[in-house]
Amino acid sequence: MPDGAAAPRSRRRGQALITAIHAAVLAELDESGYAGMTMERVAERAGAGKASLYRRWNSRAELVRDTAYHLMSDTEGAPDTGSLRGDLRELLRRTVTLLTGPLGGALRAVLSEALADRTRAGEISSLSLGMGRRMMADVVARAVSRGEIDARAITNARLDVGQALLRDRFLFREVTESDVDEIVDTVLVPLLGAPVGAPAHPR
Amino acid sequence: MPDGAAAPRSRRRGQALITAIHAAVLAELDESGYAGMTMERVAERAGAGKASLYRRWNSRAELVRDTAYHLMSDTEGAPDTGSLRGDLRELLRRTVTLLTGPLGGALRAVLSEALADRTRAGEISSLSLGMGRRMMADVVARAVSRGEIDARAITNARLDVGQALLRDRFLFREVTESDVDEIVDTVLVPLLGAPVGAPAHPR
Repeated sequence: MPDGAAAPRSRRRGQALITAIHAAVLAELDESGYAGMTMERVAERAGAGKASLYRRWNSRAELVRDTAYHLMSDTEGAPDTGSLRGDLRELLRRTVTLLTGPLGGALRAVLSEALADRTRAGEISSLSLGMGRRMMADVVARAVSRGEIDARAITNARLDVGQALLRDRFLFREVTESDVDEIVDTVLVPLLGAPVGAPAHPR
Repeated sequence: MPDGAAAPRSRRRGQALITAIHAAVLAELDESGYAGMTMERVAERAGAGKASLYRRWNSRAELVRDTAYHLMSDTEGAPDTGSLRGDLRELLRRTVTLLTGPLGGALRAVLSEALADRTRAGEISSLSLGMGRRMMADVVARAVSRGEIDARAITNARLDVGQALLRDRFLFREVTESDVDEIVDTVLVPLLGAPVGAPAHPR
């Protein structure tokens, strides 16, 4: 009977299970928001056991963060449109789509919790700063290999600028597609074309 | 007697009162942190009536925000060291000093509350984004008048970059003086020297 109790529903495993759980997180957030989302409801909707959720994620915050991470990176890897400007626009647009969708409100809530708890802030940091910088690094490395920009123009702070500006606007108001154009055209493209440490056109 | 009840202690008014209240906020935060700070204790320490606090600030959050604002702007206005690089370093250093002092933890807490409440986020936005951009605009306008940079290189997004990068790092980990050097030398000075909308050195 203990065996029978676990068997009635065939449970997905591995990547298929994780994909189902991420989809369930999005659906729950869309339906009830972060305040109404529980590990139980996500598990139920995904047809998974609650224990299998807790084995992978300690909290709702971790689950939301991880879902955001996969949504950003799983789609098709960092964008590859053939130009630096095109790739940057596509990358920041994806971020805007993420932040304005059901995950946006949840990410604000997760960050709100994290700010009240320095340990969580550190965890979020390593994941979300890491992700933004990694995708930017991919995009910028391709621009270097195409000869669009100089490898010496790449620094960590420069890789963070676009996401930092978007995040800043997201936290304090809303972000839109027009933020993307402004950030790419007036900040990122000129900055990545400028040598480090000296004005680009000294007068 | 009602008159007498208000009279025993000579109460400061106007700017002197506000200065005393800001000092009391800092002292309370230093002693008890944001969690322990109350309007009552601030009023008592400042030798002010609780009603006179609530006439000016609706909440602890507003009081902290306003104290931060005055601490940043009152000191001596935007820095004026004679060079763009010097001014930028000084401005961001002041921000780091603010964020690493007793107000830093309180500002994290205020932001945490604001993220859970969109109306508050809007209030914080208009004040803190406004302040950062205004001080940057002063510094950059002086660089234009000295002929260091071209007025056409100034856009709102460019004025926000430095504070956005600092804020991002502050929220997710800690900020230090070395963040200032990195941001000024690898991002702000090159960016403000680059024309808008085109790579600085097309190849």
